[in-house]
Amino acid sequence: MNGKLFGLGIGPGDPDLITLKALKILQSADVIAYPALEDGDSLARAIVAPHLSGGQPEYAIRIPMSVKREPAQSAYDIAASQLADYLKAGNDVAILCEGDPFFYGSFMYLFGRLSDQFETEVIPGVSSITTCAAALQAPLSARNDILTVLPAPLENDALAKRICEADSIAIMKIGRHFDRIRALLGDLNLTDKARYIERASMKNQKILSLSDVPADAAPYFSMILIHKRGQAWD
Amino acid sequence: MNGKLFGLGIGPGDPDLITLKALKILQSADVIAYPALEDGDSLARAIVAPHLSGGQPEYAIRIPMSVKREPAQSAYDIAASQLADYLKAGNDVAILCEGDPFFYGSFMYLFGRLSDQFETEVIPGVSSITTCAAALQAPLSARNDILTVLPAPLENDALAKRICEADSIAIMKIGRHFDRIRALLGDLNLTDKARYIERASMKNQKILSLSDVPADAAPYFSMILIHKRGQAWD
Repeated sequence: MNGKLFGLGIGPGDPDLITLKALKILQSADVIAYPALEDGDSLARAIVAPHLSGGQPEYAIRIPMSVKREPAQSAYDIAASQLADYLKAGNDVAILCEGDPFFYGSFMYLFGRLSDQFETEVIPGVSSITTCAAALQAPLSARNDILTVLPAPLENDALAKRICEADSIAIMKIGRHFDRIRALLGDLNLTDKARYIERASMKNQKILSLSDVPADAAPYFSMILIHKRGQAWD
Repeated sequence: MNGKLFGLGIGPGDPDLITLKALKILQSADVIAYPALEDGDSLARAIVAPHLSGGQPEYAIRIPMSVKREPAQSAYDIAASQLADYLKAGNDVAILCEGDPFFYGSFMYLFGRLSDQFETEVIPGVSSITTCAAALQAPLSARNDILTVLPAPLENDALAKRICEADSIAIMKIGRHFDRIRALLGDLNLTDKARYIERASMKNQKILSLSDVPADAAPYFSMILIHKRGQAWD
């Protein structure tokens, strides 16, 4: 009988922000799998390391970092095939997903390749977006707010249009787009309402005003939150 | 010395979807507080009931359900004042918040009244939106998707404009607005891409096609997710 596939949301970085449900599956799965750098470490594995006894087989899903689509898609084909072998042998496989599996996660690529063939359960996790809001002490959205989540790689025109039409905005995956986004928010007169945070809930979490972020220094795991109401929460 | 205020995200309903961090604070806080119906039960308390030993003082925050703003705001003034008394007496107070405290949560109203006077920490939780996506086995957003979260009480024109401009849409707080929203999605030719779910992760979770939801029967805790890519996830 085939094993079961789990997309396991492990939360944003603090090992204690994993759920009880994910922890139980993490510790009981026959095989754990996680995304990893092509020749290096896995952030996902590092997040759950305090919870692992070390006795489980592990599989690193190594995906080349490339702007091109094909190399990554080929790597996902190979990973899916190897994970399918574990599943066909009757092993339950838990794929670790930073944050939530279905919120801008690469788990989608394996889900698309495996969920038709194998029983699949997705365990939601605490996402980066609400973790950033909590760390910034700034409500993300309330009442009838329109909340829009925007990936930073989008072009300025697309970003500006949605920013103008929402009450609350989260801009994700800032990284090398920071300087452009900072200038755009200045043009839109939103600098004062924008809050910047890096690596929310991790040991090296950092909160800075937009003007204090050095040029070209924002990591991929950074986010800008903007609420047009500002501090008026009551 | 004053106690500390916690906004405690307890997750969407399944008691096992609480985080380790929230669980520790839940079990160690001097006082737990939670929203409750004016003369009835508290869903938040019911969610965490399996984790409580029963020895902690509890405070029910009773807020009148009203379309008018003033009665609720007065009730929050009174609750904030009574919680402040606990805090001034040196008690750590944990306010239980369904889902995440800063994602469309009423915690905002107490945060606005208390966080200036008392040390406050917000513990993010698993939100309803990713829980619905997980239960529906439908990725919420990926790659450079624009995700927009819309409260159902907004008017049709406002909803339609944002729905047309996003890749992925979550419509929250459906309740009595269901029939109008279903008709709107029909007009926008999105019925086939819309997924409906009630009470995600709770024991009485229900997934239906839009056409199978009886008129006037959607509860407040229901959501519609729409992804324009449909099932093309790889």
